Amino acid sequence: METPTALLDVTRMQRNILRMQQRADDLGVSLRPHVKTHKCAEVVAAQIAAGATGITVSTLKEAEYFFDLGIRDVLYAVAMAPHKLPQALALRRQGCALTLITDSLAGARAIVEFGALQGEVFAVLIEIDCDGHRSGVKPQGPLLLEIARLLYGGGMLAGVLTHAGESYGLDTPEALRAIAEQERARCVAAAEVIRGAGLPCLQVSVGSTPTALSAVSLEGVTELRAGVYAFFDLVMHNVGVCRIDELALSVLTTVIGHQVEKGWIITDAGWMAMSRDRGTQSQKRDFGYGQVCTEGGEVIEGLLVGSANQEHGVAWFDGVAVDVVERFPLGTRLRVLPNHACATGTQFGSYGALLENGEVQVWERLRGW
Amino acid sequence: METPTALLDVTRMQRNILRMQQRADDLGVSLRPHVKTHKCAEVVAAQIAAGATGITVSTLKEAEYFFDLGIRDVLYAVAMAPHKLPQALALRRQGCALTLITDSLAGARAIVEFGALQGEVFAVLIEIDCDGHRSGVKPQGPLLLEIARLLYGGGMLAGVLTHAGESYGLDTPEALRAIAEQERARCVAAAEVIRGAGLPCLQVSVGSTPTALSAVSLEGVTELRAGVYAFFDLVMHNVGVCRIDELALSVLTTVIGHQVEKGWIITDAGWMAMSRDRGTQSQKRDFGYGQVCTEGGEVIEGLLVGSANQEHGVAWFDGVAVDVVERFPLGTRLRVLPNHACATGTQFGSYGALLENGEVQVWERLRGW
Repeated sequence: METPTALLDVTRMQRNILRMQQRADDLGVSLRPHVKTHKCAEVVAAQIAAGATGITVSTLKEAEYFFDLGIRDVLYAVAMAPHKLPQALALRRQGCALTLITDSLAGARAIVEFGALQGEVFAVLIEIDCDGHRSGVKPQGPLLLEIARLLYGGGMLAGVLTHAGESYGLDTPEALRAIAEQERARCVAAAEVIRGAGLPCLQVSVGSTPTALSAVSLEGVTELRAGVYAFFDLVMHNVGVCRIDELALSVLTTVIGHQVEKGWIITDAGWMAMSRDRGTQSQKRDFGYGQVCTEGGEVIEGLLVGSANQEHGVAWFDGVAVDVVERFPLGTRLRVLPNHACATGTQFGSYGALLENGEVQVWERLRGW
Repeated sequence: METPTALLDVTRMQRNILRMQQRADDLGVSLRPHVKTHKCAEVVAAQIAAGATGITVSTLKEAEYFFDLGIRDVLYAVAMAPHKLPQALALRRQGCALTLITDSLAGARAIVEFGALQGEVFAVLIEIDCDGHRSGVKPQGPLLLEIARLLYGGGMLAGVLTHAGESYGLDTPEALRAIAEQERARCVAAAEVIRGAGLPCLQVSVGSTPTALSAVSLEGVTELRAGVYAFFDLVMHNVGVCRIDELALSVLTTVIGHQVEKGWIITDAGWMAMSRDRGTQSQKRDFGYGQVCTEGGEVIEGLLVGSANQEHGVAWFDGVAVDVVERFPLGTRLRVLPNHACATGTQFGSYGALLENGEVQVWERLRGW
């Protein structure tokens, strides 16, 4: 394998996928994995084989890509921009069971009017704000019902959806259980408001990797969404929902130089390979640009990628004097565990998928819009 | 144009390219642009047309890509990893005048031995550490001459090279002039050490965008390298080497939602489009994930992308109450100026190149390794 390569430990990935599917099964909900993490046909196939009922996407290009590969049930979980409606229409007309989301009257109106004009009935979920994280309408307040009535009038009201993005900022089991319950309760409350007004609300969709792995009950919820769990990463490790030896994605790199006096190892995995994501910077343990492991995947305690330029990673042991030339001579291969699997993966056009029998396959990866 | 799109203002780019070429001409050195910023055939063509004598690359894939497009004179400015030598050999055998760099005895030995075995004489520059930034050997001390003698023994000693990466952390004309002079002086000193030992040192290559635009004299230098100047970005604006209206790259985005009470505008340019680069965070002005402009490119004072998720950007005015729905209704198009043009560009497979006559062309962009 050339370096840098995005190395995917398929054994770990498979275990992560089964773990999340088991949770969804135990909680009595269907699982709709978010494919934005991996954007890879083989990974989706493993998720579907494990029991996933459909997929969540972050771009319409992902929807098109995976629909072409035979996945019919697709949720586009970003508020629908009016100018993208023709692209959504084309997918529906080809037979894709595409669901859209909205969190505004203007957005809902655009979908309903475009649908009426084109003779297409879109399925639309109303996005609920359960934690002040980003988008969505409050479960209480008049806006939710106004949007629901508008969508219902067009025959397009499919349900509600939320995402507890604030869960990424937590790191204790208690806090995670609490936000998982808040995510569930507020989304179910929104569904109840809609039903209380005499409108249907079939789908109640919640999820994020931290809340999905922390929820005690998903009563009232119909489906669970999560993405990064398939690979996990250092951010999720800091949140507390995975062990470090469960991380399936790493970057294979080569030592290309040293600064002996400073104890620096220079590698060919800079930010172009790792991404600029510094997600662990604000967490309880800052892993710099990544945790360095041996080529075989053993964590090298204390050795982090401390800084990164475009094609140079600089790794060092914090406060420890190590003869880096002796221990990691030029040409040494290492693996680096990333902060954020979604961001690191997207720097590559494919994965080097390492199978349990040691074989390495090239798994293509979608990029762009 | 779909959104998000990497929009390239070709008029500004052309002006930036001419400005740097003029400086190289005035300073009496040749200009070898670093193409890692743009990785785009049309941009290289403009640089060559303006007078560039060759290119600098950050990966051998770039070398292959641009050699196939007719660029013969290529400097691979990352310390040569021994396992990549067969790839370099293949390029040389096809007629590419590829120059390599090294900063270690082990690296130099690997090149010389591989060359001897293959009957190929590589041209190699010794990388000099002029500011403690990353790689390179000190201009004083025995290592420089040991490497020089080893390379000379193989007939491969082509000269010295340095890059004042620490210049990115400065922001006054005085400090920039001082580091530019330090970059020049230390690289020239290294060349003198080599020549003093009776060895040749034909090439003396220095550069970074900040030092290239600040140097008063490049006496003793033969060529200048710089990359980001073709596009500039907010980091360079903070360094003080460009005006904000000289930034050629922006991301075209669409408003997809609002959080009215918070004054938030939600756009479809999240970190997947902007990159996770937060280069201005440690500078005198933090631009978040980018400076928001109108669709036409006018800066909207005070409106920054304050946070970003994968496909969501969140922009707000700092401390100012603005009716964001009224002013930026759903579907509004905006442009966002990025922190770091190299990092933002690489998120896209192509540029939307906006010509002076208003025409938009698709300019392909290389990615990966």
